[in-house]
Amino acid sequence: MKSTPNASNSVTIRLKINQTVGLLAKVTAAIAEAGGDIGAIDIIRVEGKNIIRDITINTTGTDQVEQILKLLEKISGVEVINVSDRTFLLHLGGKIEVTCKSPVKTRDELSMAYTPGVARVCMAIHENKENAYKLTIKKNTVAIVSDGTAVLGLGDIGPEAAMPVMEGKAMLFKEFAGVDAFPLCLDTKDTEEIIKIVKAVAPTFGGINLEDIAAPRCFEIEKRLKAELDIPVFHDDQHGTAVVMTAALINALKVVKKKPEDLKVIVCGVGAAGTACTIMMMNLGVKNIIGFDRHGALYSGRSEMNSAKMAYAEMTNPLKLRGSLKELIVGADLFIGLSGPNTIDEEDVKNMAKNAIVFAMSNPTPEIMPELAYPHVAIVGTGRSDYPNQINNVLCFPGMFKGALECLATDINEEMKMAAAMAIANSIPEESLCADYIIPSVFDKSVVVNVSQAVRLAAISSGVARRK
Amino acid sequence: MKSTPNASNSVTIRLKINQTVGLLAKVTAAIAEAGGDIGAIDIIRVEGKNIIRDITINTTGTDQVEQILKLLEKISGVEVINVSDRTFLLHLGGKIEVTCKSPVKTRDELSMAYTPGVARVCMAIHENKENAYKLTIKKNTVAIVSDGTAVLGLGDIGPEAAMPVMEGKAMLFKEFAGVDAFPLCLDTKDTEEIIKIVKAVAPTFGGINLEDIAAPRCFEIEKRLKAELDIPVFHDDQHGTAVVMTAALINALKVVKKKPEDLKVIVCGVGAAGTACTIMMMNLGVKNIIGFDRHGALYSGRSEMNSAKMAYAEMTNPLKLRGSLKELIVGADLFIGLSGPNTIDEEDVKNMAKNAIVFAMSNPTPEIMPELAYPHVAIVGTGRSDYPNQINNVLCFPGMFKGALECLATDINEEMKMAAAMAIANSIPEESLCADYIIPSVFDKSVVVNVSQAVRLAAISSGVARRK
Repeated sequence: MKSTPNASNSVTIRLKINQTVGLLAKVTAAIAEAGGDIGAIDIIRVEGKNIIRDITINTTGTDQVEQILKLLEKISGVEVINVSDRTFLLHLGGKIEVTCKSPVKTRDELSMAYTPGVARVCMAIHENKENAYKLTIKKNTVAIVSDGTAVLGLGDIGPEAAMPVMEGKAMLFKEFAGVDAFPLCLDTKDTEEIIKIVKAVAPTFGGINLEDIAAPRCFEIEKRLKAELDIPVFHDDQHGTAVVMTAALINALKVVKKKPEDLKVIVCGVGAAGTACTIMMMNLGVKNIIGFDRHGALYSGRSEMNSAKMAYAEMTNPLKLRGSLKELIVGADLFIGLSGPNTIDEEDVKNMAKNAIVFAMSNPTPEIMPELAYPHVAIVGTGRSDYPNQINNVLCFPGMFKGALECLATDINEEMKMAAAMAIANSIPEESLCADYIIPSVFDKSVVVNVSQAVRLAAISSGVARRK
Repeated sequence: MKSTPNASNSVTIRLKINQTVGLLAKVTAAIAEAGGDIGAIDIIRVEGKNIIRDITINTTGTDQVEQILKLLEKISGVEVINVSDRTFLLHLGGKIEVTCKSPVKTRDELSMAYTPGVARVCMAIHENKENAYKLTIKKNTVAIVSDGTAVLGLGDIGPEAAMPVMEGKAMLFKEFAGVDAFPLCLDTKDTEEIIKIVKAVAPTFGGINLEDIAAPRCFEIEKRLKAELDIPVFHDDQHGTAVVMTAALINALKVVKKKPEDLKVIVCGVGAAGTACTIMMMNLGVKNIIGFDRHGALYSGRSEMNSAKMAYAEMTNPLKLRGSLKELIVGADLFIGLSGPNTIDEEDVKNMAKNAIVFAMSNPTPEIMPELAYPHVAIVGTGRSDYPNQINNVLCFPGMFKGALECLATDINEEMKMAAAMAIANSIPEESLCADYIIPSVFDKSVVVNVSQAVRLAAISSGVARRK
């Protein structure tokens, strides 16, 4: 877990402090002693000889909060009135709302937005279904669909518990790309049922973002929906990760001056994201990719493989190498980690090729901590925001859908994904590229503009755009 | 159709008018001649000897617009540049959007609303599912579910064409009650499939508003969902209409000084809404209700009845009267019309009892036009906004769901519906009641407050509230 105090674990502690000289200093000292990072001290009110203060503190987690409280309670003249977790406060009542684009405060407004005026609009769509793109929310609206079975690193936590992630995603769609997205967390894990449900709700939406659905079910669901729906369907865990990783790789190769076709690549974790990353790397020209699961390297004919892994083994590992990760990482140019914490060690990265690249994307704890890898390799990327080169899906999905929606695309295809990866990579000017800056910041506003434009042009040139 | 010019049929005509004295007067005279009602004249810009003006006109419909344009084109020195339909303009891009309750502009905000902070919130819900009511949008969010088979009076126009109505409904939820509602228009007419879909999406929502689903399918869908879900399910076409009609009836009976148990009631149209109105009237104490379809009165044992009509016949028409509407309306105290335009005539209302009440709710053209009924009966109500006593669902559903959501109700039951009807009726002070004012205006802000409070209390006393 995170070892530095941060806002995601911040609390506001309300204290009643006696107006004695030096007492506030004791409070701040106690917080510092426990390792807390004070962000703000506010006076709420004065009650006789006491002052009520709110102290907002970034912490490393609940353990540290308890330690802080223990130290505060020991100080005489100080009373803890309330502790509020800022992340939970932010979530009270949910994070998104459905609002009106225009008011309905008068009889005239009501008669245009609702009955009787709305009837003419309905009939215009009934006469030509394509008018739904003009006269309803369809053109700018995405469904974020999850069954809650593979949420973050938390696993199968259920549809209710998945909602905060999907609401957060909807916020990012709106904030970064102006796209309206609505979460639908489904109380079913049945592949056929999920497919039926998404097909049935499709008239309302211009695109479907599948999210946090466990493998191998996610493959079948995405494949079928792509074939059976005329709006784009995109499983972000697979392709969002693949697009951003590919963007990072494109820039990393410029920095280390290597070519895709010359690389030896190790992919640790061949689930949904690992497979999508592999396919994009192959589209980029990478030839020699070896995938690993807990049983070692995947090669054609190996035992203990499901159909997805068999397919993976068929298309990769051209030399049919067998062995453990430790054995085969020797001489590798690129390590892609999409597995779990601390899968490789310092010795492993030491054994990689000269100017090696490590993308250790397991979150929050990477396959190897950057400080261990850095002395031995040229470039390290992770999923974390507190190290350089954060490989974060937020760089992809808002612009990807914005571009696809703008041209009424019927699909998000390989051409559009590669265009998005290039656009993300090219958002950093060539002259700024360096080992610690191969991927733009998630708050770089040019990224969504570049990605949506590139995606739209790729949709048009690959023939999936309804509006040219 | 509407016979007076109104905003729902308003257009803005952009004209290039030569700067000749008296020419604008000719323009306005031509519009008036065609029957158009000018709302505003704006100058857009001056182009040499011409002025570009926007003239906004309420009309009776597209025929009148064409007539206006024809007359305008005849005037020399006047050129029509553009005609825009204000109702269509309002619908461009849809009427609702999904917005963030808090910004995500900094790294700290991102870390609290999304990863890594969101993980702790997810786990709090995973540990106790009821936390979804606190930490997600569930508590204040309603799904508006339609299959597009019985939209307004337009019939089966499909899910895409139903969207403008559902978006309009979502606007009213937000504007009138602050409830977030999201439309889901389903591309299926299969009862079992619709039930499965609504059950599957339920984790995201605190309530389900079924809308514009054709009978008899709607009965089974609602019954099953009410039994199988732990959140309130409400088919507005049935119960919304019934609640508002009952509110109107409660006040109408005060005005005409009659009692429910003494009434002879004719229900013309025994579909979804007619059946729900009948049940609420029975709960109010009405004994003698006779339903009609195109074959005449429904009585126990009649032929040409589906199972819904058989059940209806069993519980109504205690005297087992047979015959046509024309025969049996004689001596009736109350006529409830939920069928189609011009079903009854002046003679029929003349034959009703003294101080009769007519609720002719077919929309936009009622079973009898109020001007024909008024000379012969005490009170007339319709679904229209351009006559007194508009019986409009908007008076019910926002407050109904607000009240149900506030107490985390598991159901919307008969007690809550009757409480809502009483609250709507009581929103008019007794001393203000009169034949033309038995139902409050849809813009009366006290209604939603009264309804939600009454519904919440009824939910608590009838044992369906999770929060007391």
